[in-house]
Amino acid sequence: MKKVINNPNNVVDELLMGMVYAHPDHVRKLDGFEVLVRKNSPVEGKVALVSGGGSGHEPSHGGFVGKGMLDGAVAGAVFTSPTPDQVFEAVKAVTGPKGCLLIVKNYTGDIMNFEMAKEMAEAEDLKVDYVVVNDDVAVEDSTWTTGRRGIAGTVLVHKIAGAKAETGAELPEVKAVAEKVIKNVRSMGLALSPCIVPAAGKPNFTLGEDEMEVGMGIHGEPGTHRESLKSADEMVDHLVGKILADIDYTGSEVVVLVNGLASTPLMELYIVNKRVHEILAEKGIKVYKSMVGEYMTSLEMAGFSVTLLKLDDELKELFDAPADTPALKSL
Amino acid sequence: MKKVINNPNNVVDELLMGMVYAHPDHVRKLDGFEVLVRKNSPVEGKVALVSGGGSGHEPSHGGFVGKGMLDGAVAGAVFTSPTPDQVFEAVKAVTGPKGCLLIVKNYTGDIMNFEMAKEMAEAEDLKVDYVVVNDDVAVEDSTWTTGRRGIAGTVLVHKIAGAKAETGAELPEVKAVAEKVIKNVRSMGLALSPCIVPAAGKPNFTLGEDEMEVGMGIHGEPGTHRESLKSADEMVDHLVGKILADIDYTGSEVVVLVNGLASTPLMELYIVNKRVHEILAEKGIKVYKSMVGEYMTSLEMAGFSVTLLKLDDELKELFDAPADTPALKSL
Repeated sequence: MKKVINNPNNVVDELLMGMVYAHPDHVRKLDGFEVLVRKNSPVEGKVALVSGGGSGHEPSHGGFVGKGMLDGAVAGAVFTSPTPDQVFEAVKAVTGPKGCLLIVKNYTGDIMNFEMAKEMAEAEDLKVDYVVVNDDVAVEDSTWTTGRRGIAGTVLVHKIAGAKAETGAELPEVKAVAEKVIKNVRSMGLALSPCIVPAAGKPNFTLGEDEMEVGMGIHGEPGTHRESLKSADEMVDHLVGKILADIDYTGSEVVVLVNGLASTPLMELYIVNKRVHEILAEKGIKVYKSMVGEYMTSLEMAGFSVTLLKLDDELKELFDAPADTPALKSL
Repeated sequence: MKKVINNPNNVVDELLMGMVYAHPDHVRKLDGFEVLVRKNSPVEGKVALVSGGGSGHEPSHGGFVGKGMLDGAVAGAVFTSPTPDQVFEAVKAVTGPKGCLLIVKNYTGDIMNFEMAKEMAEAEDLKVDYVVVNDDVAVEDSTWTTGRRGIAGTVLVHKIAGAKAETGAELPEVKAVAEKVIKNVRSMGLALSPCIVPAAGKPNFTLGEDEMEVGMGIHGEPGTHRESLKSADEMVDHLVGKILADIDYTGSEVVVLVNGLASTPLMELYIVNKRVHEILAEKGIKVYKSMVGEYMTSLEMAGFSVTLLKLDDELKELFDAPADTPALKSL
């Protein structure tokens, strides 16, 4: 296990301290909890946004805490849902009279624990609601998930719902726009190598020298199939084909997000992006903006995902609104 | 070779097209040349900045083309110096009456080719000067280099000299501030895994299961020694110790740059950053700002480097000046 770590049991603590040291103008850590919140939380006059999940997906989610995106991010153990009390603490720290929206990726443990936190917060008279992101078109039902998994598209929910919250909108309005993003965002990825949960110390699956797993989840959950390595263009053709088959993007404008899972170099992500743009041009789908980089990673896994978000005027305007977070500035 | 590519001989072309598709508001490609320039080049009233080198270090250097940083970036073949005519084309495309500063990393091929381009541009009555970045304290003289190598500290030269150029300063002033950064910036890195030049198809060196190479360069050039894998803290203690032994940082304020070489996850880079901050606090060195991420990569190599830049008031102000490039926005 070649990792740059100290004690495998302390990686989340040390990660969060490293983030606070790096971004003291953006985030602070709640004492005694694995939670990062906006430095000036609670921010007056806005709905608070809280997300989170297992660690190992950095910069998700702590890297998206800041103006125009999240108010709080809860960091579970690696690939493990945060406990309800951690989520509850995050909610308490950031929520004012306008309430709080939880943005949850569709994993059974996350749903259960965020729902429980919601009940704990409501028992203290806080207004809380939640949305569930399920953008991964690869498979229905998977390890840890009933229905589709939530993957990189979640970052676009943070961006757009975060922008809506900054306008001073009410909780149902922020929730509605988050649901609109969820309805219009689709993703799919593939993996070229496994990853190693630090405390486990060995790869979570194996792949042959010339193999890739298509449709793999961000924790190494099985995808649709394994096959021999293909060219970048063939990989992209398959993933984008599955996405376009899922909802009708004809004549629409989209945000493209090419997300690296960790070990795939930026050079390769741009080669992927080239092909995505070519396919969309052929189909008459207009690209409004593109994001290429690491937004939702899987420890040291090699691979990538492609996300398409179908836009309308409201989503465009919110996508373009200012953001100032460690991992994402105004686009 | 598990890469997300098409033809290994086309990776640079496809990379640049992918960048243009992703960042059409920032960059355009010069027809027939592996060169990205600012969309509105030449920008009136400013000294132009041109950098570049072999490809495989993305986001360096094309990702730093834009307001407040570079005017042009020349992309050689993977790990291969760009030819003089490519550099010359970049200079011609971006240079106005105030002239052009070339920012060159200290590799023999780069120095030779950028110098030759300078002469070609001067023959056409363009004002051109250059600086050489040599921030890597690991080794004197190495594969492809006489003297110290230029690595991630180069990005801070782009940032600060770029900010100076935006003020309308003259070429000698922009050069002087670039040299001030070079005088005050030091880096050192280590590698946990090799990388594969696409056209070669096999790793450029091998490392044992439990081995790391300390002081390795960004093309896999040998470092100071190999040893068994250590804890993150021990790795950082060694690298920062070497940097602090090189120039006197006592009582100063610094920018910290923790740079991932590619496959090392952001989680681990933040764990590194934590230790860097602890060491500096112990030594009474104040951290002004931190950057944690991938700025100067080495294809899919695992490992990281640490860079410290000693600041004065001028460097602080220029570091904080606005930037808007694909890979670096205002800090």
